Amino acid sequence: MYKIIKKEGMAKRAQLETVHGTIQTPVFMNVATVAAIKGGVSTEDLEQIGTQVVLSNTYHLHLRPGDDVIYKMGGLHKFMSCNKPILTDSGGFQVFSLAQTRKIKEEGVYFHSHIDGHKLFMGPEQSMRIQSHIASTIAMAFDECPSARADENYVRASVERTTRWLKRCQDEMNRLNSLEHTINKNQLLFGINQGAIFDDIRIEHAKVISDMNLDGYAVGGLAVGETHEQMYHVLEKVVPYLPEDKPTYLMGVGTPANILEAVERGVDFFDCVYPSRNGRHGHLYTNRGHINLMNAKYELDDSPIEEGCQCPACRRYSKGYIRHLLKAGEMLGMRLCVLHNLYFYNTMMAEIRQAIEEGRFAEYKKNKLYGMQEFDGEGNGARYDIAKGWKKG
Amino acid sequence: MYKIIKKEGMAKRAQLETVHGTIQTPVFMNVATVAAIKGGVSTEDLEQIGTQVVLSNTYHLHLRPGDDVIYKMGGLHKFMSCNKPILTDSGGFQVFSLAQTRKIKEEGVYFHSHIDGHKLFMGPEQSMRIQSHIASTIAMAFDECPSARADENYVRASVERTTRWLKRCQDEMNRLNSLEHTINKNQLLFGINQGAIFDDIRIEHAKVISDMNLDGYAVGGLAVGETHEQMYHVLEKVVPYLPEDKPTYLMGVGTPANILEAVERGVDFFDCVYPSRNGRHGHLYTNRGHINLMNAKYELDDSPIEEGCQCPACRRYSKGYIRHLLKAGEMLGMRLCVLHNLYFYNTMMAEIRQAIEEGRFAEYKKNKLYGMQEFDGEGNGARYDIAKGWKKG
Repeated sequence: MYKIIKKEGMAKRAQLETVHGTIQTPVFMNVATVAAIKGGVSTEDLEQIGTQVVLSNTYHLHLRPGDDVIYKMGGLHKFMSCNKPILTDSGGFQVFSLAQTRKIKEEGVYFHSHIDGHKLFMGPEQSMRIQSHIASTIAMAFDECPSARADENYVRASVERTTRWLKRCQDEMNRLNSLEHTINKNQLLFGINQGAIFDDIRIEHAKVISDMNLDGYAVGGLAVGETHEQMYHVLEKVVPYLPEDKPTYLMGVGTPANILEAVERGVDFFDCVYPSRNGRHGHLYTNRGHINLMNAKYELDDSPIEEGCQCPACRRYSKGYIRHLLKAGEMLGMRLCVLHNLYFYNTMMAEIRQAIEEGRFAEYKKNKLYGMQEFDGEGNGARYDIAKGWKKG
Repeated sequence: MYKIIKKEGMAKRAQLETVHGTIQTPVFMNVATVAAIKGGVSTEDLEQIGTQVVLSNTYHLHLRPGDDVIYKMGGLHKFMSCNKPILTDSGGFQVFSLAQTRKIKEEGVYFHSHIDGHKLFMGPEQSMRIQSHIASTIAMAFDECPSARADENYVRASVERTTRWLKRCQDEMNRLNSLEHTINKNQLLFGINQGAIFDDIRIEHAKVISDMNLDGYAVGGLAVGETHEQMYHVLEKVVPYLPEDKPTYLMGVGTPANILEAVERGVDFFDCVYPSRNGRHGHLYTNRGHINLMNAKYELDDSPIEEGCQCPACRRYSKGYIRHLLKAGEMLGMRLCVLHNLYFYNTMMAEIRQAIEEGRFAEYKKNKLYGMQEFDGEGNGARYDIAKGWKKG
């Protein structure tokens, strides 16, 4: 099902076969929170930007339109007319980050909807049932994602509960996959490693969940406040304790530089809202660094966002035109920027795959970071933080 | 240049050759106010929905991004990557309807920008220069559009000034088309008939402007507060006095029923924001009447907006999914609805053209109105006013 094609150091070039098609990794999943990529991007558009896997949010879909609606409509693939693999998160992260007045108990989490405030409960079984209703290709285990600032005692207790929850997730998913009325009886389940920035907790947890023979393993609880260096350190410590013959997924990460560093450390699944969110604000990725299209210098620029780029925006439209659309508040401006950024990410992943296959990933990574002038982690050049601007390395 | 292919009563099936391609009429122009159709629709999308002509707004483009920017970028076609004929209005209607504290003088109109309040002036020469900068295929004359409630004396004086302005427009356009640096030296100019609901003023004005040998003639100042019956009456009175061998354009109109009635009275160019504006609110046109996609009954509806419709929305997505997108505030929902509505209008125009060619327009019109249960003007059935809801005919 999961097969490694080539390795270069820890970097893996692999593929995962699913009932909805084979995923070539390393892969960047394109985020469609409420069953659509924000910015007016349709599943038809995805054909043009190299999307392999779509990621949707269990918490959001549970609230709107409701997983019962999606189930009655034949599952998320049919509902959103998507013929690609879809991964759903567990809803846990949103319950912990979006919901008001949450209360964590052994059975699960009591919380209030961030939309209308009504009382809800989600535990491992509920998360699995909702994801089974949605009928995604890959379901994620329900876990707690402790804050990067949580103390060691809290994190240890939390991770132990997450392990107990994982067992309940696995049992419930096995039960659901065996039911007659289940839409996707081959739904995969990925477990999630937690432990904040405590090496020993992370490693101990990785060992325990590795023995559970899940379909894949995610490293969670990163990109939630720790530094990039701490993130890379955790990956270096933990990934060697996760089964090599299963996909490794770094949740919610990140910048192109983060992805390159994580691939080098053995990760092969990624997702992040950066390309779509930044795109909606006119922040664009190119091989020669980020650009902010709202900048006045692009007013009369009749060249594409990036020369030679084959995305739907660059093939036809100029920076000057797209800038005008953004300034006038026209949705088309956002859509074109989102398409460009997702194409940039998806294309980088294709380049990474080819580089690993050809045994030149280290060289590719160095050149890519140099071109983007984005030396996160390595510090041998200027680096651009899209949130903070340019910084000397 | 303009050639009538077939007539059925007053209804004309014709074509207009332009430097940007031949327009088959009757035609519905798709409104792209600030150089993009609202709702995230790209010029690439237009290929899929049968758009023949794009209409952009001189006033809006003058303010943002500025006609100087569009000129420097090589004209509007190049700027928005559109290879179809583009018609620009004169800016007059927006000056009179949007701008604050306007003052009308013989030389033109003094007013303040609706965006930032700065002082502006527009007269016939300014409108022609802006439109020449934009380099549209067809420019519209700068006129005053008096209110439907204006008294006869005001309307008479206004129309006489509009005639003087039209002469100045024609002289200025001739001068601009002869200049070396002009982007489109073959820019066409359409004159506009005014006169509110006063038959004699309308007819007298139609006679005067018909003698000026313009490239086309519009009937303006309708759909601004008068009844549909008054609109049809004006068309019946005025169109016979406009040159039959020139295109006739009814500005800013209207519902599918309005268009069918106006085609019957000799009109062959139309534009209206209804399909795109209604689409953005989930109000959709079908051959079996309007539907409001926000209605709860569509929650679990897995059928397309209209069975058999070949638009990009109906070919792939269900009512239930699009409704979910609209309710979740996802731009994709609006985009799909706008694409459907424009496709509906553009397809109706293609059907109208074929019906006139085959001498069965009267029959087509009757069936179309019956199917849509939309009997504006004729009153022999229920009728749906998208603003007011169902009404017994």
